[in-house]
Amino acid sequence: MTLATTKIAPSAIQWMGEQDGHLQLIDQTLLPGNLRLIDCHDVQTVWEAIKMLRVRGAPAIGIAAAYGVCLAKSDGNLLHEARQAADYLATSRPTAVNLFWALDRMRSVLDRFNADATEDESKLASALLAEARAIHEEDRAMCHAIGKHGATLIEDHSTLITHCNAGGLATAEYGTALSVMFTCQDQGKNLKVFADETRPLWQGARLTAWELMQREIPVTVICDSMAAHVMKTQKVDAVIVGADRITARGDAANKIGTYGLAVCAKHHNVPFYVAAPSSTFDLALIDGCDIPIEERDHAEITSPYGNIVAPAGVEAFNPAFDVTPAELITALITERGVIQPVTEAKVRQHFSE
Amino acid sequence: MTLATTKIAPSAIQWMGEQDGHLQLIDQTLLPGNLRLIDCHDVQTVWEAIKMLRVRGAPAIGIAAAYGVCLAKSDGNLLHEARQAADYLATSRPTAVNLFWALDRMRSVLDRFNADATEDESKLASALLAEARAIHEEDRAMCHAIGKHGATLIEDHSTLITHCNAGGLATAEYGTALSVMFTCQDQGKNLKVFADETRPLWQGARLTAWELMQREIPVTVICDSMAAHVMKTQKVDAVIVGADRITARGDAANKIGTYGLAVCAKHHNVPFYVAAPSSTFDLALIDGCDIPIEERDHAEITSPYGNIVAPAGVEAFNPAFDVTPAELITALITERGVIQPVTEAKVRQHFSE
Repeated sequence: MTLATTKIAPSAIQWMGEQDGHLQLIDQTLLPGNLRLIDCHDVQTVWEAIKMLRVRGAPAIGIAAAYGVCLAKSDGNLLHEARQAADYLATSRPTAVNLFWALDRMRSVLDRFNADATEDESKLASALLAEARAIHEEDRAMCHAIGKHGATLIEDHSTLITHCNAGGLATAEYGTALSVMFTCQDQGKNLKVFADETRPLWQGARLTAWELMQREIPVTVICDSMAAHVMKTQKVDAVIVGADRITARGDAANKIGTYGLAVCAKHHNVPFYVAAPSSTFDLALIDGCDIPIEERDHAEITSPYGNIVAPAGVEAFNPAFDVTPAELITALITERGVIQPVTEAKVRQHFSE
Repeated sequence: MTLATTKIAPSAIQWMGEQDGHLQLIDQTLLPGNLRLIDCHDVQTVWEAIKMLRVRGAPAIGIAAAYGVCLAKSDGNLLHEARQAADYLATSRPTAVNLFWALDRMRSVLDRFNADATEDESKLASALLAEARAIHEEDRAMCHAIGKHGATLIEDHSTLITHCNAGGLATAEYGTALSVMFTCQDQGKNLKVFADETRPLWQGARLTAWELMQREIPVTVICDSMAAHVMKTQKVDAVIVGADRITARGDAANKIGTYGLAVCAKHHNVPFYVAAPSSTFDLALIDGCDIPIEERDHAEITSPYGNIVAPAGVEAFNPAFDVTPAELITALITERGVIQPVTEAKVRQHFSE
């Protein structure tokens, strides 16, 4: 289904109907030119949508995967099929910890059911959908809480830089980094935002600029390499980005380019904020160097949209993420509040309260 | 004329024939997919080629503009026409000081001729071509001298990062930054190079990767935003870039993204070298902030190769250059030698010897 671009966009992720329903996603690879919805009636379609970044952003991936488990079809053993679906969906993207976190919550539901009790299948399906909906609804509430906490750090008339897309498209609703901006706007603060285009897949130009324009927040698209020049020549008050995984000491994996942006922010004494829900934290990891970094197809670099921009056969390197060490992060913003300064003690304290 | 891509590429800039000849350029906007030559028979075609980046790189622009003056046609007053050609060609790109420097050399030739002596037109045409050829030949020699001096700074088995294209395509032959690499190779040193793709026009992916592959120097293309991650996770021994204008204190204007790369190099203690001929220096300027920065069409950012990557009507910012302050530059490499540390005293001493 293709809709005309409209001011009132559908949700990035929506469960249509009840227990026998299906998952509807915006195909984010086609934005902003096309607002096309994908109807997912099986697990494979959800896996492909996550893999191909039709749905992207750590929280959104988690929510989509949770609903994906609900699409497992019983061939007489729904418990088994749903477990297989969870295992399969976990293979779609290696870095986003929310994916594993959401699938673990779905597995906990499965663990409550007896493998032999096939008569419970309807109850099981109902419990799975309830859990996916809870994950979805909790994320919506988390986004708003993140926005509320983050907005305390941003003054009226601020100029911000953001990278990639940590907005409503990446989450259940307001987003993480963008939720801070949307909440500032709700509070009447005036903002100006520079959106890094975010090569190789242009999530910043395509998605962040689109979300900010829909909300009528002034946005200027720049190439990633221009952010340092903008910091040097214009007054930039803060950088705000999302994260895909954060360790116990506060090292944050996020879209490739975030680390260089943090280095430049440090050099210019610009506060660097990372906004992410609790589910993004992986307290079993200390050092960000231990986060596995997904490497993607070289063609994303060498032939964007099919245009050959590099010689045939040239070597390329396409890490999807990088890791920004805690030392470069001014504060972490979660739905529970603000972690500042970013140290292991502060992170652990934040989650033990 | 379109040639198959070949190992033996024609020169980026070549004067064909003698006094009644013409200028032949590689259309660098079509590389690496197409190796097409442009035959320039008039000043307008040269202006357009410079403006549209068919010929680019500070030294190459200067050489092309000098030959461009030779294409002025006499309507009875060649002196007047050639002066107008020089003034017109100076409007093609605002930042490259070599352009103005080369045109000033051509104007000096014009100044030696009497405005009333129309019988001298053949002598004048001959003198103009001789001067343009001298500029071209001097640049060739300068490139080799830059390479020789720069190679003293690079050890065998080094891994380097470069940005944009400061190679043979940007100059008369070996280039500036790439001349250092080519000279290292001539000396038997093994190198590995990461080439920043260089958004928005991909000169690194298209041109630098192509030149390095032709020379069989191992090259890996990365997005600009990946350089910091490469510095952090791999052993990078140096960054080498070219420059479009360098002030008396050593501040260097170069392709947008160079400044952020320099900030990241400083953060990782990676030496940052700028290689450029004397003609790139503008000793009348002290502070790099006084260098005018060309701003280019937003479509370069929002619709690369015609693909819409940002919402219709979105604001964009497209500075073609940025300025790296002397403090971030480990050494400047010219055809005269190495300036290290980079201070105003050292720069002035370098040119007074």
